[in-house]
Amino acid sequence: MSVKFKNLTEAESFKELVSFPTPDIKNILSAERISKYNIKTGIGLDYNYSAKSVDKKLLKLFQQLADEQQVIEKYKEILHGSIMNPGEKRMVLHHYTRGVHDVEYKKGVSSKINLYKKQIERFSDFAEKVHSGKIKGSSGAKFDTAVQIGIGGSDLGPRALYLALKGFMQSGGQKPLINCEFISNVDPDDASDVMSRINPETTLFIVVSKSGTTQETLANTALVKDLIKSKSKSLDIAKHMIAVTGKGSPMENPLEFYKSFYIDDFIGGRYSSTSAVGGVILSLAFGSDVFNKLLEGAHSNDVMALENDILKNAPLLDALLSVYDRNILKTTTEAILPYSQALSRFPAHLQQLIMESNGKSVNFKGKLLKYETSPVIFGEPGTNGQHSFYQMLHQGTDIVPLKFIGFKESQQLNDVDFQGSTCQKKLNANLAAQITAFAIGHKDDNPNKNFPGGRNSDILIGQKLIPETLGSLLAHFENRTMFQGFLWNINSFDQEGVQLGKKLANKVLAGAQENPVLDAYSALFR
Amino acid sequence: MSVKFKNLTEAESFKELVSFPTPDIKNILSAERISKYNIKTGIGLDYNYSAKSVDKKLLKLFQQLADEQQVIEKYKEILHGSIMNPGEKRMVLHHYTRGVHDVEYKKGVSSKINLYKKQIERFSDFAEKVHSGKIKGSSGAKFDTAVQIGIGGSDLGPRALYLALKGFMQSGGQKPLINCEFISNVDPDDASDVMSRINPETTLFIVVSKSGTTQETLANTALVKDLIKSKSKSLDIAKHMIAVTGKGSPMENPLEFYKSFYIDDFIGGRYSSTSAVGGVILSLAFGSDVFNKLLEGAHSNDVMALENDILKNAPLLDALLSVYDRNILKTTTEAILPYSQALSRFPAHLQQLIMESNGKSVNFKGKLLKYETSPVIFGEPGTNGQHSFYQMLHQGTDIVPLKFIGFKESQQLNDVDFQGSTCQKKLNANLAAQITAFAIGHKDDNPNKNFPGGRNSDILIGQKLIPETLGSLLAHFENRTMFQGFLWNINSFDQEGVQLGKKLANKVLAGAQENPVLDAYSALFR
Repeated sequence: MSVKFKNLTEAESFKELVSFPTPDIKNILSAERISKYNIKTGIGLDYNYSAKSVDKKLLKLFQQLADEQQVIEKYKEILHGSIMNPGEKRMVLHHYTRGVHDVEYKKGVSSKINLYKKQIERFSDFAEKVHSGKIKGSSGAKFDTAVQIGIGGSDLGPRALYLALKGFMQSGGQKPLINCEFISNVDPDDASDVMSRINPETTLFIVVSKSGTTQETLANTALVKDLIKSKSKSLDIAKHMIAVTGKGSPMENPLEFYKSFYIDDFIGGRYSSTSAVGGVILSLAFGSDVFNKLLEGAHSNDVMALENDILKNAPLLDALLSVYDRNILKTTTEAILPYSQALSRFPAHLQQLIMESNGKSVNFKGKLLKYETSPVIFGEPGTNGQHSFYQMLHQGTDIVPLKFIGFKESQQLNDVDFQGSTCQKKLNANLAAQITAFAIGHKDDNPNKNFPGGRNSDILIGQKLIPETLGSLLAHFENRTMFQGFLWNINSFDQEGVQLGKKLANKVLAGAQENPVLDAYSALFR
Repeated sequence: MSVKFKNLTEAESFKELVSFPTPDIKNILSAERISKYNIKTGIGLDYNYSAKSVDKKLLKLFQQLADEQQVIEKYKEILHGSIMNPGEKRMVLHHYTRGVHDVEYKKGVSSKINLYKKQIERFSDFAEKVHSGKIKGSSGAKFDTAVQIGIGGSDLGPRALYLALKGFMQSGGQKPLINCEFISNVDPDDASDVMSRINPETTLFIVVSKSGTTQETLANTALVKDLIKSKSKSLDIAKHMIAVTGKGSPMENPLEFYKSFYIDDFIGGRYSSTSAVGGVILSLAFGSDVFNKLLEGAHSNDVMALENDILKNAPLLDALLSVYDRNILKTTTEAILPYSQALSRFPAHLQQLIMESNGKSVNFKGKLLKYETSPVIFGEPGTNGQHSFYQMLHQGTDIVPLKFIGFKESQQLNDVDFQGSTCQKKLNANLAAQITAFAIGHKDDNPNKNFPGGRNSDILIGQKLIPETLGSLLAHFENRTMFQGFLWNINSFDQEGVQLGKKLANKVLAGAQENPVLDAYSALFR
């Protein structure tokens, strides 16, 4: 690779940023700025950063920092097929699950791209046969339900996207083609709860694990089979089970799974929503047309993310602003606040995407870092959050950067005029009011009623949450996370921090008594 | 009042704490400590703080701090009926929704206690009549569904408690007596979604707003009525609507509501789960016996919270440890990690409870503070979180104090032995492993595989998540939040920080064009 890996704090532009004055958003915010600090980020989506503490001089330094950290070149290395996940010695190819890029690939990438394309064809075909009734349950009943059994990346992204599009499909009294449920937690009450709601005869179970060895997923599959047996003795369970896994994994077994769809090691779990991990269930739920539109939106963002100019590259600009918040303004958290009930679980997906990718203390070369990386990510939909934790955001002692998401129209278009305005108008009036209130504040002689303001935010805005827009939104955050990683000089694609817990849990289960502390904690649950 | 209000940093014991050495949990953790640093916290629940960075010397200073801040005396002032919410000039009486205390009340408190008792009788009776079919829908059909329309405290607590007990009712193939849904967000897609799942003929709507003027709740009620009309023209909607509101509020209207149940100004929204706000829907869902057991558990914690000795008062000890984390160790966030799928929305409730109560910058007397108050609260159930944000918790650059919740048994008791252990065993093996991994870490020459450890946590443990235990758990956090407020010298019972956003949103809706920034943001949604 011709790119160089340099710690954030070694970049000359970062050193300049440290001593550079931060503009007070209260003083610079204006109607003109609100219309100017607004750029596209993929199909159907705008990124408005007018309420961030940034001005032209800072933006110029941001551009220098992006150039110095060679973020576009590094993104291209990813697309070329370089080993950009050095911890696991792997390529990083999730962008190819949604479209091909006009770059020169290294050896071996083409066959991977073909694998991903082939899977889309295979699961599109499969979904169509389920919808038409050509593929049925073992008792001859048509499938009306799918249950995804997976955890982490095999759960959070697909679940968030399913919920995000369910309302879109429901508009005009429609329903999803297949109703979906998800089982993730090894807590047996999770499977019990889902199983109490569904009819196994008409249900297809999608077991998702790249390695084919995920403890929770295998245990839940065993529990689900057990519960089916006790409920519907005559069912041929293998005809109700399909797998999404790596080729050659222990899960690839035609005796247990009617069908298998494939992913590989070059798609990280938290970046796998647009692969078969999300594709199978979303195509079943909404049809492959809808899933393909989602891919189209994601690809549009991936293409735009190749722009060198940060004012034409929203995920990059967003990443720079977040690094400025974290490493210059020293914020420790970030709130994701979608004003859209359909995005109720989108913050949970982003929590994994960002914190698991960038919650690291070593750099790309494996050396210890001395500066802050991923903040804590949290969030709930507005206006719900307003009646919950916004008190702390407005008047608390810490500054929390806020990322709003909003849409001009509702998905399902049911609405009512009440006291002079619709619910959708009320929703967006609240959103506009909050951005303003956080930025400008309000002076009051009573300190208890005083709002200091100066609390910065940005917003992603779309016309309506449709599949293309959702794809852009998803890829915006994936690309922003990748760019953050380049700026921080870390590997955003491994997750060594999850290993120790797994290892110790297996020791407990094996009954080893070598660690008195571990034994004593285990004993609390006996 | 004979109590004195002093800022945290003015307390002599706090000044001592600042310069006092913090023990490294890695060095002091032992099997003996794990069994010793364990106390009761209400019926069915233990509080184990063995993995907190605390030793006997620090505990002694904590006791001095609690004494100096007169936290027990202040709690007694609350029970007496003093104006302990000075911002709104109100008493704070939520403890009386679950039992009477052996203290001398001030004038007027008795009549309030009688109101709360009376409501329990009224909604128990009502729930029984709905269950027996004495009260039916307007078409003569029995009610099988209840939909709560409320937001903030009228939504998060009741919803979290409903989900927490649903599995308990489901064990052995049972179901809740009445199936429940919740509509909160003013986004019209929220109501659309719920309405697509229910049959209005067999549904009772519970509209909850103390003031009777909550914008979201009134708008959602109008939207729900509109959707019912378009679906079931002949239904007498008023016979399907009941209210939980303040006496004399604009919502108290027998023409619109078949029945009204009452709360008053002395029960804050986020503390109202054990009042009619949670009581009506939980009694409908599970029967009044279950709700009464929840109250019993909560009351047991309230009584224990009167203990002066911090080693016999778990919510107080927990509050002291959290203030130590925040103001001495300078942590900025706190993760709530229930290893119980039934508690999936409990962190969202606590997020409101803690951040809205204690996310303040002024003291009890309304003067600006110069130290940190509420951290950001976030969390998801384990083991799900392990596959999501735990990477950052283990190896990220910031320390996040962790609060685990666990139970020896699952609720529904369905389980399977897979690869030598049940799912429940796997769940708890993971929990024991995580506490140990966070505290002790693991040394590795490869910095990428190194775990620094020293990341402190505590855990609330019960035998099983039954109603009494859930009540203890709820009250533990309410009382802990109250004690935090006393330690920080703030008013935990008002929420002035929500007002500015409301005001500006109303300006937008009224079409006022006086604020160009507000207008420009509003224009983004047109």
